[in-house]
Amino acid sequence: MNTLDPIAEISHTQIIFPQGMMLECGTRLGQVTVAYRTYGMLNAQRTNAVLVCHALTGDQYVAEPHPATGKAGWWDAVVGPGRPVDTNKFFVICANVLGGCMGSTGPRSLRDDVPAAEAKVWGTDFPPITIGDMVCAQKMLVDHLGIGRLFAVIGGSMGGMQVLEWAARFPDMVFAAVPVAAAAYHSAQNIAFHEVGRQAIFADPDWNGGRYWEFGKIPARGLAVARMCAHITYLSEQALTRKFGRRLQNAPKGPGEAISLFGDMFEVESYLRHQGSTFVHRFDANSYLTITRAMDYFDLAAEHGGDLAAAFRGTKTRFCIVSFTSDWLFPTAESRAVARALNRAAANVSFVEIPTDKGHDAFLLDEPDFHRTLAGFLQGCAVHAGLAEWRSGR
Amino acid sequence: MNTLDPIAEISHTQIIFPQGMMLECGTRLGQVTVAYRTYGMLNAQRTNAVLVCHALTGDQYVAEPHPATGKAGWWDAVVGPGRPVDTNKFFVICANVLGGCMGSTGPRSLRDDVPAAEAKVWGTDFPPITIGDMVCAQKMLVDHLGIGRLFAVIGGSMGGMQVLEWAARFPDMVFAAVPVAAAAYHSAQNIAFHEVGRQAIFADPDWNGGRYWEFGKIPARGLAVARMCAHITYLSEQALTRKFGRRLQNAPKGPGEAISLFGDMFEVESYLRHQGSTFVHRFDANSYLTITRAMDYFDLAAEHGGDLAAAFRGTKTRFCIVSFTSDWLFPTAESRAVARALNRAAANVSFVEIPTDKGHDAFLLDEPDFHRTLAGFLQGCAVHAGLAEWRSGR
Repeated sequence: MNTLDPIAEISHTQIIFPQGMMLECGTRLGQVTVAYRTYGMLNAQRTNAVLVCHALTGDQYVAEPHPATGKAGWWDAVVGPGRPVDTNKFFVICANVLGGCMGSTGPRSLRDDVPAAEAKVWGTDFPPITIGDMVCAQKMLVDHLGIGRLFAVIGGSMGGMQVLEWAARFPDMVFAAVPVAAAAYHSAQNIAFHEVGRQAIFADPDWNGGRYWEFGKIPARGLAVARMCAHITYLSEQALTRKFGRRLQNAPKGPGEAISLFGDMFEVESYLRHQGSTFVHRFDANSYLTITRAMDYFDLAAEHGGDLAAAFRGTKTRFCIVSFTSDWLFPTAESRAVARALNRAAANVSFVEIPTDKGHDAFLLDEPDFHRTLAGFLQGCAVHAGLAEWRSGR
Repeated sequence: MNTLDPIAEISHTQIIFPQGMMLECGTRLGQVTVAYRTYGMLNAQRTNAVLVCHALTGDQYVAEPHPATGKAGWWDAVVGPGRPVDTNKFFVICANVLGGCMGSTGPRSLRDDVPAAEAKVWGTDFPPITIGDMVCAQKMLVDHLGIGRLFAVIGGSMGGMQVLEWAARFPDMVFAAVPVAAAAYHSAQNIAFHEVGRQAIFADPDWNGGRYWEFGKIPARGLAVARMCAHITYLSEQALTRKFGRRLQNAPKGPGEAISLFGDMFEVESYLRHQGSTFVHRFDANSYLTITRAMDYFDLAAEHGGDLAAAFRGTKTRFCIVSFTSDWLFPTAESRAVARALNRAAANVSFVEIPTDKGHDAFLLDEPDFHRTLAGFLQGCAVHAGLAEWRSGR
């Protein structure tokens, strides 16, 4: 895997903000590019926009085939005509996060602090970013699109962190907020799993101190190990047992062969190896380092004097908090803590725990209860928001 | 870390069995060395022997300083004079497992299938071994010591797997059995975590296809990542939160520095890095591969036609099954399944779940409830076994 080419350069829909932005770390990006996709039509009043925020390894290709992998959009089951986030009614926007690798400014972008003639890739010199920085870049896009208030901001996992940050930073711009399978801070255990992934990347000699592109290489083995480790945390023990149990299959030829007992390997091993090896073709290692760090640093209460309720004081946003019973990465208790803080802030909040054995990944999968919850919440909010024009059309 | 020397060669107490043994994979080891330690005195009737079985990265240095690290024995709190496994009463034996790297035959040993003059290290050519093979090597030691029946076999985690295998294979040799924080099979999730660790080792170029010693190197970075990942599974989320929470400290100079936000890192990261980097000095990567594989393949029910009760039919062994509430690597449900199977086999079994927030590692830590349970069970069994001579001495 040493000689894999860097991930393919793809042409994305982008907006360049030449004014740049100040990051929370104190560094100024001289120029910011936001790559995004939209689905559905913005109404004349510009009141039906829904911002979808993607997770760690997600991107803006929510409801259409991915340009690199050809696979269906990552939230095809949730966003689209007649889906819970109905693109016949809503204008859906999704932007690649700042620090990402699908067209928005990130470690793969050219530095903006040197003359264009000497342009170099940021790489590991890309400044550290935060969930707040991601949200500020999204706000530049929303402003640019002439949208004064988003009907809803929705996202799962790290996307849910962005939803909370949006609601805390720009409460008047968020009519409804749906953080799914998320939390108001990253736990010690989650930081620990991220750190294992980062160390696996650092340990790969093809990482070359983060300047792998100069050598025409990617740290594919390290990034694959990082993905494998993270992937386990996205599933539940029940889901792994149901999908694979202890079933064996013939081991492929490869470095692991010598230690395979009796020439077999477990199906779960094969599945994980596949998850790891396909991931490296669509994701940049330095983006992985940058974004995991942003998640680790997220702590909304700490940003508000240690009181999460203070983050939402006086908010008029309507919240629907969703968690999944078997999610051990962002367990229900952390969603409940957000709901309690919102209650203390006298916010309009509903909290739904969806029974499922699919673990954290449930937010991406076919979960009819979750989809009904989301559709119902948006429907109710639409009435309150006075979006009656599309209701009468049914 | 590239240039780290292989782990130090240490002189161990060993017995060489020139007759060798047949392994479950069908390969014959021409010679088997078992390294072991004993504590306390064997009584004249040879009826007070307790075999302690160690876990994945444990060894025979149960109750004395470790010769490589200088640290206290790994079960110093449990084994010793006046401790739950009281060496004033019992003769305690612990052997380094087959496949290990502390003096028993394993991947670091010289091959026995070539003339001595051409002697080479086994390395990755060491045959795959099973928990059953480990137990058979221990039985050779117990036979050699002239002990016809062990008063008790005790172990935690992989040690508990060995306890169950002992009781199933040699029921007449095991008066009492205490599997702690264990299970009768390795779950899909546990296999998955092991596979991440193995892939991290394979990904390290210093692994050199498993022949690292020929290059004077060890795959220190890969082995450290494997250890870090495994270490998270040994703790509970509560324990990680209690110990580290989200506290920051200054980041050390190193490869991670460039991406540390604001120059800080989380304490939990520092702790994990330390766990990883110290581990590589005391453990051999090929042993790690061999032993994790043995654990993955363990499935006691499968060895008995799919019925765990059949493994224990007619047993006279007294069992005490111990689990810990916050252990998510070997959760209580798996211990309960063992207890149920023993009940179906009409065995004498007690099952105790110890409340603790320390996770899987609780079996190694100061857990007074566990220690009282163990001491009480052994005391009761000693009466039944007629070991009255030491009771009257109190």
